[in-house]
Amino acid sequence: MEFIQGGVCAPKGFMAAATAAKIKYEGRDDMALILSETPCEYAGVFTKNVVKAAPVLWDKSVLDTGSKVSAVVVNSGIANAATGEEGKKKCEETADYAGKVFGVDRDSVLVCSTGVIGYQLPMDRIRSGIDALSKNPKHSDEAALSAAKAIMTTDTHEKQVAVTMEISGKEVRIGAMAKGSGMIHPNMGTMLSFITTDCNIEKSTLNLALHEVCVDTFNMVSVDGDTSTNDTCILLANGKAGNDTVTLGSDEYEIFKNALFSVCREISMMLAGDGEGATALMEVVVDSCDSKEKARILAKSVITSSLTKAAIFGHDANWGRILCALGYAGVDFIPEKIDISVSGDGKSMVLVKNGQATDYSEEEASCILSSKKVTITCNINEGKESATAWGCDLSYDYVKINADYRS
Amino acid sequence: MEFIQGGVCAPKGFMAAATAAKIKYEGRDDMALILSETPCEYAGVFTKNVVKAAPVLWDKSVLDTGSKVSAVVVNSGIANAATGEEGKKKCEETADYAGKVFGVDRDSVLVCSTGVIGYQLPMDRIRSGIDALSKNPKHSDEAALSAAKAIMTTDTHEKQVAVTMEISGKEVRIGAMAKGSGMIHPNMGTMLSFITTDCNIEKSTLNLALHEVCVDTFNMVSVDGDTSTNDTCILLANGKAGNDTVTLGSDEYEIFKNALFSVCREISMMLAGDGEGATALMEVVVDSCDSKEKARILAKSVITSSLTKAAIFGHDANWGRILCALGYAGVDFIPEKIDISVSGDGKSMVLVKNGQATDYSEEEASCILSSKKVTITCNINEGKESATAWGCDLSYDYVKINADYRS
Repeated sequence: MEFIQGGVCAPKGFMAAATAAKIKYEGRDDMALILSETPCEYAGVFTKNVVKAAPVLWDKSVLDTGSKVSAVVVNSGIANAATGEEGKKKCEETADYAGKVFGVDRDSVLVCSTGVIGYQLPMDRIRSGIDALSKNPKHSDEAALSAAKAIMTTDTHEKQVAVTMEISGKEVRIGAMAKGSGMIHPNMGTMLSFITTDCNIEKSTLNLALHEVCVDTFNMVSVDGDTSTNDTCILLANGKAGNDTVTLGSDEYEIFKNALFSVCREISMMLAGDGEGATALMEVVVDSCDSKEKARILAKSVITSSLTKAAIFGHDANWGRILCALGYAGVDFIPEKIDISVSGDGKSMVLVKNGQATDYSEEEASCILSSKKVTITCNINEGKESATAWGCDLSYDYVKINADYRS
Repeated sequence: MEFIQGGVCAPKGFMAAATAAKIKYEGRDDMALILSETPCEYAGVFTKNVVKAAPVLWDKSVLDTGSKVSAVVVNSGIANAATGEEGKKKCEETADYAGKVFGVDRDSVLVCSTGVIGYQLPMDRIRSGIDALSKNPKHSDEAALSAAKAIMTTDTHEKQVAVTMEISGKEVRIGAMAKGSGMIHPNMGTMLSFITTDCNIEKSTLNLALHEVCVDTFNMVSVDGDTSTNDTCILLANGKAGNDTVTLGSDEYEIFKNALFSVCREISMMLAGDGEGATALMEVVVDSCDSKEKARILAKSVITSSLTKAAIFGHDANWGRILCALGYAGVDFIPEKIDISVSGDGKSMVLVKNGQATDYSEEEASCILSSKKVTITCNINEGKESATAWGCDLSYDYVKINADYRS
């Protein structure tokens, strides 16, 4: 498997487009389209929030019908969450209208929204937007890039990744784009994430691969502990690569799943590193744990600790806060066995050995913590399982962005 | 029951003192003493963090022995957490030395520490501090105030409260002092809290009262979601009021428990309102829930939401974040039934009715959210149970304080 240029248009048969529909933003694109030449097998993971946005309910209902998917229509600016029956109706109207414009069944159109909660979508603008999107869908890196930019809210840059691999003698590709910067916390797909592949793969196998991969990628990302109402991860497979159908338990499944894992991990790190106000990507590795789930819980606890996040922002090797966050995670371990180290920019340093401070240099530690990517490794010394979580530091700008977001 | 002036010295027979022992801070008191004329029944609630500070382990062991308590020695500056066997030994030495100085058994001396994790206590300074404290313990409001000031870390002001009530014809008092500003999150006593009473009450009854009250007071406070290694709440009863012994199930128990609840609620609100960097006290009331525990979980979820906290700081009536935080709390409810209102400075406003926005004025809402105490009321409309949680907004200063805390 290799990383290549591009995003959702990297796999064969996928087109993208973007347009400025003026949903909320001015002077920038705020609607995006992914269109497949042929109907796709579809897998999806959605927010576990009790309050689910209308488009989440729609996309889940499409999943339940088992219908194939041809198009995804996305808007940024308004989340269409907490909008009642009217919001649900507007979502269906969007699918209905797009279905007619693209000449496909309305049940093969997915709808995604992101932005402020509680506002109704302006349907005239949505319809004009779909008209505009229908004029120019392209199978190109430029089209993928414009779509990736159109779905951004407080993101500071677009997030795309693509990989290539060989399956049964054919080149198979996976491409992805995502948005998400605030209201991000492990509890499913996190944010909006769109993954395309030309792999020929069974629906149930595709679904399993996505679920298996999400647990250790998107679900291990946290920017602020807030699980959004709109979080969605969609995976579409159109089979255009022409490989033998990938089935469960085969070597090819492992190849595909590993490539999907790489894509999702890369996107997860992009999301975490572009967390609202972030000055650094924080990576927490929990090693040598006696169970995988325990390792995940411990890693998530450190990644969500406001005090640890603020210490990273201040380049302060305040390992007491890391140990403390492990301690309140809700799982048991032996504090006297814990080792903690930090690394960044190719340098590494052990801060804690057997639960107590080593004789480390605060100055050198602070230098490591000034890296753009800081890795905190917590060795539990109880077993062989490990887990990794991604987040970011807590800066003045996080507060600034979120105190002013709606205005 | 009435609130009165004073703190831990308000009840009969309790003395306090403070001294500058130079544990870490310069130019201020950093050691405090509470001393009772006669041995006290003792109840305590401690951190649930797996990583427990040495003094927490000591105070728990005293509780386990069932021994009465005569003195509490507190230092700020160094937490004596993650300090291994040496830290435990130093804690015992502190109790041992204080026991000799005050002429009481070492098992009747409680030790509490708060400050940076991972540093060893300077025992020479602790011993000199105890010597200094022993010279001047007084039963006065001034002594209580100096003790309340000595235990502060990033607190901006001391926290004291006292009440009086009548039990079996005698005046009974409860007094309290506490510290805590960061690393505060519901999971037991939260921070250091010291409560004294001259009530004559059985040990087991005292213990039950404290546990019953903590659930809806200290455990409903969150500043930043971080549960400290040192959190401790100690309740001492010396019986000096001369009332008939309060036993479980009696009317007198209810009087005492209600007064204790008032004291703990007041202290909880002080802690939340003085949260690191706070510009406002946030109170979240979850009403009309079908179970008490569910109401608590929902209230805690909103009080810990970084996005909601940042919106309050920005005086932004971003109710979508409140609804969202209810939604990811991990309990079920019907979003379409929820009402949300905000109040402050005597004004009140309904933002959400049946899960959707009302036609409220953003300007007036912003005005309400500019109050020093903001109450968010979420009506679940499913039953009769309610719960209240306290926290604060998330400001630039929280980040500033915690990026720089050790330096």
